[in-house]
Amino acid sequence: MTFVAAPEQAAWVARVLQRLEAWLERRLPQQAPAQLHEPMRYAVLDGGKRLRPLLVWAAWEAVGGASDADEEAPVWSVAGAVELIHAYSLVHDDLPCMDNDVLRRGKPTVHVRFGQAQALLAGDALQALAFEWLSSPSWAQRDPARALRLVHELAQAAGWRGMAGGQAIDLAVVGCTLDQNALEDMHRRKTGALLRASVRMGALAAGASGAQLAVLDAYAQALGLAFQVVDDVLDATADTATLGKTAGKDAAAGKPTFVSLLGCEGACGYAEALLEQALAALKRLDADTAQLQALARWVVRRGR
Amino acid sequence: MTFVAAPEQAAWVARVLQRLEAWLERRLPQQAPAQLHEPMRYAVLDGGKRLRPLLVWAAWEAVGGASDADEEAPVWSVAGAVELIHAYSLVHDDLPCMDNDVLRRGKPTVHVRFGQAQALLAGDALQALAFEWLSSPSWAQRDPARALRLVHELAQAAGWRGMAGGQAIDLAVVGCTLDQNALEDMHRRKTGALLRASVRMGALAAGASGAQLAVLDAYAQALGLAFQVVDDVLDATADTATLGKTAGKDAAAGKPTFVSLLGCEGACGYAEALLEQALAALKRLDADTAQLQALARWVVRRGR
Repeated sequence: MTFVAAPEQAAWVARVLQRLEAWLERRLPQQAPAQLHEPMRYAVLDGGKRLRPLLVWAAWEAVGGASDADEEAPVWSVAGAVELIHAYSLVHDDLPCMDNDVLRRGKPTVHVRFGQAQALLAGDALQALAFEWLSSPSWAQRDPARALRLVHELAQAAGWRGMAGGQAIDLAVVGCTLDQNALEDMHRRKTGALLRASVRMGALAAGASGAQLAVLDAYAQALGLAFQVVDDVLDATADTATLGKTAGKDAAAGKPTFVSLLGCEGACGYAEALLEQALAALKRLDADTAQLQALARWVVRRGR
Repeated sequence: MTFVAAPEQAAWVARVLQRLEAWLERRLPQQAPAQLHEPMRYAVLDGGKRLRPLLVWAAWEAVGGASDADEEAPVWSVAGAVELIHAYSLVHDDLPCMDNDVLRRGKPTVHVRFGQAQALLAGDALQALAFEWLSSPSWAQRDPARALRLVHELAQAAGWRGMAGGQAIDLAVVGCTLDQNALEDMHRRKTGALLRASVRMGALAAGASGAQLAVLDAYAQALGLAFQVVDDVLDATADTATLGKTAGKDAAAGKPTFVSLLGCEGACGYAEALLEQALAALKRLDADTAQLQALARWVVRRGR
């Protein structure tokens, strides 16, 4: 499901995505060993809605980052790095010992195409590459303290406190009933941490103040949770062709979801309330937040 | 197989290891989610010869790093981070889709004890934690340019150019014959890159000059290759109880090794020649390199 923006945002999205795809195409490895770079490139290129890089860009611009930043600017490394972490997590998540999924972004999953061992290693190498990009001397040496903070944000979001921790909880709660607090804690880690980091890192790369960061953080936390609520609704209601990944997985796996907790209508209402929270936070920012607003609306209303 | 040093080095090794184990024990996560921190701790604590952290420490001291550095000093984060990368690579390497091994460091492997999905996630989280430690604000903010360089060194050593790339080649060459150049290229990546990074990062953390780094790099490259040559000899000649991991795996898997290429005697002679190269490099360093020498001798003569 690709991003469909309101007409006034469509040009912005198209421009960022076109430059992003070209940047990723150039920066992903193409040298030996081919056994590794082929599944790495397959996992990242030509697919995905690129929500996280778009959030990086929107946050960067909202706090004054140049909209025509050249490809050496930190915003590209940040946008690329969060997408690599996202892509690696999908590769590992699709493995037979995890979700055992065969379809992703409308294509065979990496292990179906290249084998399990290659998928495992490609995921591992994508995570390392994310940190390589963030610490890339070409720009990072100009402001190493800022670059180092970005490394720290991403490492925390990807690791045991964040994404990996959320996935471990997700495995453990199959067949369990969770109350809303426990369900939200899991998703704040599993999906929310990286979405939040995308916004925070885009803003930090552009030199956000503490006050700006606090506002954007409130936006990002509401958006991250809304994303998962809507994901649960889509998993329960959309078909596989629309999603580009297998639909109905959560119910089939006996996973607790916002739909199982609140019902479809309740979950949709909760997502709308979270959207209002996200938009209200942005009003406290003295800046052009049109793209951040549009992305939040898209997150909540995609698939409708 | 634990490190057995000559008497004059034994006290140094014992002191570093005692402090390292205590540092790791305190710094590895113990909070929720337990589904993740238990396999993470199991993978890292109470086992392994800690060669990489010892190399970090020996290089740190050789270029003037304090031998009584407190636990906030960069040497600890570096020593811990390289050990996390090593530990995660073993967890993933032991998975059924890779080497499918059940014994490591004399204990059941992580996936045997905790399940495959938990092992996969624990490995992923250990990699992220390595970068979290390296970018930890407590010391990194004091010299962010240096910390950032350490991040970059580790990311390159762990990623597609280094360890992950070497493992991908290793998978692809089962049943093949490699010439010595190709075999060495594979091992320079697979095992050599992280051993080399350990020496380089220990030295960089202590503020090594370019000239010092060049000498230590020559030492580390020879040592890294010697390590693998000896590993191949041990795999072919030692028993499982001595190794603490399954012996005879390489021949059983039809992997090209230095023993299959040079014979046992030829491989042992090559390891001794590499040891001489490593020791010769150290003579160009105007410093006390006793620990680096002892570690190189141990790498080549362990198991004898």
